[in-house]
Amino acid sequence: MPLQFADRLNNVETSAIRELFKLLGKPGIISFAGGFPDPAMFDVEGIKQACAQALAEEPGGALQYGATEGYQPLREQLSAFMATKGAKDVAPDNLIVTTGSQQALDLLGKCLISPGDKVIVEGPTFLATIQCFRLYGAELISAPVDGNGVKTDELEKLIAEHKPKFVYLIPTFGNPSGAMLSLERRKKVLEMAVKYNTLMVEDDPYGDLYFGEAPPPSLLALSGSVPGSRDLLVHCGSLSKVLSPGLRVGWMIAQPALLANAVMCKQFSDAHTSTFAQATAAQYLKAGRMPATLANVRKVYAERARAMGDALTRELGDAVEFTQPAGGLFFWARLTGKGGKVSDAGEFAKRAIEQGVAFVPGAPFFAANPDVATFRLSFATADVEKIKEGVARLGKAI
Amino acid sequence: MPLQFADRLNNVETSAIRELFKLLGKPGIISFAGGFPDPAMFDVEGIKQACAQALAEEPGGALQYGATEGYQPLREQLSAFMATKGAKDVAPDNLIVTTGSQQALDLLGKCLISPGDKVIVEGPTFLATIQCFRLYGAELISAPVDGNGVKTDELEKLIAEHKPKFVYLIPTFGNPSGAMLSLERRKKVLEMAVKYNTLMVEDDPYGDLYFGEAPPPSLLALSGSVPGSRDLLVHCGSLSKVLSPGLRVGWMIAQPALLANAVMCKQFSDAHTSTFAQATAAQYLKAGRMPATLANVRKVYAERARAMGDALTRELGDAVEFTQPAGGLFFWARLTGKGGKVSDAGEFAKRAIEQGVAFVPGAPFFAANPDVATFRLSFATADVEKIKEGVARLGKAI
Repeated sequence: MPLQFADRLNNVETSAIRELFKLLGKPGIISFAGGFPDPAMFDVEGIKQACAQALAEEPGGALQYGATEGYQPLREQLSAFMATKGAKDVAPDNLIVTTGSQQALDLLGKCLISPGDKVIVEGPTFLATIQCFRLYGAELISAPVDGNGVKTDELEKLIAEHKPKFVYLIPTFGNPSGAMLSLERRKKVLEMAVKYNTLMVEDDPYGDLYFGEAPPPSLLALSGSVPGSRDLLVHCGSLSKVLSPGLRVGWMIAQPALLANAVMCKQFSDAHTSTFAQATAAQYLKAGRMPATLANVRKVYAERARAMGDALTRELGDAVEFTQPAGGLFFWARLTGKGGKVSDAGEFAKRAIEQGVAFVPGAPFFAANPDVATFRLSFATADVEKIKEGVARLGKAI
Repeated sequence: MPLQFADRLNNVETSAIRELFKLLGKPGIISFAGGFPDPAMFDVEGIKQACAQALAEEPGGALQYGATEGYQPLREQLSAFMATKGAKDVAPDNLIVTTGSQQALDLLGKCLISPGDKVIVEGPTFLATIQCFRLYGAELISAPVDGNGVKTDELEKLIAEHKPKFVYLIPTFGNPSGAMLSLERRKKVLEMAVKYNTLMVEDDPYGDLYFGEAPPPSLLALSGSVPGSRDLLVHCGSLSKVLSPGLRVGWMIAQPALLANAVMCKQFSDAHTSTFAQATAAQYLKAGRMPATLANVRKVYAERARAMGDALTRELGDAVEFTQPAGGLFFWARLTGKGGKVSDAGEFAKRAIEQGVAFVPGAPFFAANPDVATFRLSFATADVEKIKEGVARLGKAI
């Protein structure tokens, strides 16, 4: 007799994207599909030294059980790291370490979402966020996005109508939108938090990956200028995109009552994040290598983004429209159907695979009302030559 | 206005034990409270070499995103490790890597427990199991335990009456019971799985920590001899007690449909377990250091267990009763109240703290009908001299 699984599993589906990912093993495929950083950019030597230092300095700390809240020297380093990013008043005790920022989402779901609760997300938003919150029974409401991030006037209407448990945003170089929320809209988001007494979750794994000028301050950094907003703000950070996803080190900053409940839930989720990885990350940050690492990552991704934008214009012309991203890992594009070209991104993805290039159609990134003409291209993993070749193949596929 | 948290948080309470743990910082306290391995036994050099090897051999694998199922070379090593423990037919694909075995419990809860579902656990059982399953809305039923583990005749009655979603057992050197389930009872458990079509979860973090003869084979190793039982068995393993808790490397072996759902849930819980830790663990196992590490750990804990048993008899006499454990990390004892001595373990714990020794009262380990005369002593963290001194202090406190 088959097992009877929990009802909550009925809320999610194995994603269509997984099927697509299986094709990535095909020899010669150029992939714009994943959001993986380029391993060639990993500072292997720096991480190796940091790990050796951690084991030399405090082997017990790196190998023993640790506090669920996080390894204290790492919390201190992350507090200092946040200060360099404009959030100067985040004390080590104001943050907890999470097993990647994915776990921060899971803990928010566990702590906050009762079945049937409403949560507003951007349309489109991060796929694993949609599934994560749905597993806890959330009803997701989708707020529209343009090149400047979530449309705050539409968001305000949705908040007033639905009174959500919280609003989840990726304000800076969103996945998949690539969009950067304008300063004006950031202020509006914080004001809405206070006006409607609504919790705002700022997921910020990409904010450090800007190509030219720095983006506007994070919601967290701005919250000091909007009285009452700080207590209604959760900020999630991660070392995955800037240093190494394999460490699985993220963090969450929130008001004390929420952090306390997140810690309780985390205790029963994984006890604590690997102290081995935490102690290594702490030594890495302490060694002062992060600024050079960030500078390198920004430079390489900026070149790739430029190459991809140029190639898209050259090879696909008016068959697609997109906003050139100012940072992050992604192009978000839309098939126009002009000149009788394909306008369904699922169909386009299939043809692209035949031509030897992979990307992800946009529809699954929408919690509601999918736009089937959209698709996401990552420029993180392939180098400039591969990007040119890959986009040329897209030109054939279209 | 305070935040409104999810209803599921009403099912758990911050544990009384946490309060006690806060006192452990008091200078001079000898602790029998935690289930922490002794950091002096960590094979720091071996882990350091394994990590260096992992970064040298495949830095991309150790630092990049990885498959949710686990890092394949580690799955292969764990498959081989299980074979050395009598489970010879566990293919790498029959197991997934979890972030400590705590995460295996969390994934089981997420996959299987709908609010109101019944789950049978041992009374007493692992505290974090109780809270973990309650967070998913489980109603826990407590099956009594004696020195030979869970009483299978009682367990059978409870299964027949309650038709639980699953039964959770720590058959070998249970936490906190220290008990070793007899071979006869192991077979009965497997037969009951088939007879009642009931999933049995075997949590086995301590099975390698035996002092004399090896314990009976695990339920997993025995399942081949009870037709139909293997598909109804989940086995959870961990490197935490034998190598290092800080790596946070555990694993779960189960039938394919359950593993597939666990992988889906894990994808939205933490994406994957730290590949940095996984690759290090894989290299450690590959280097062949585990047998010597296990031999050392067994020898040291055996000495400590003997010292603690002798001291308890000498210092507390007939005021306590206990079964001398044949492995694991714990003594489970009961105050008899003889000679007018204290019979409430909570009161005894307070007095003990005043004398400079800490342990955990037994009541919170019961999902129902707590026995307030019981308490748990760990002999893992303190050395033999400290154990003698600590038990002498217990003698004063009683």
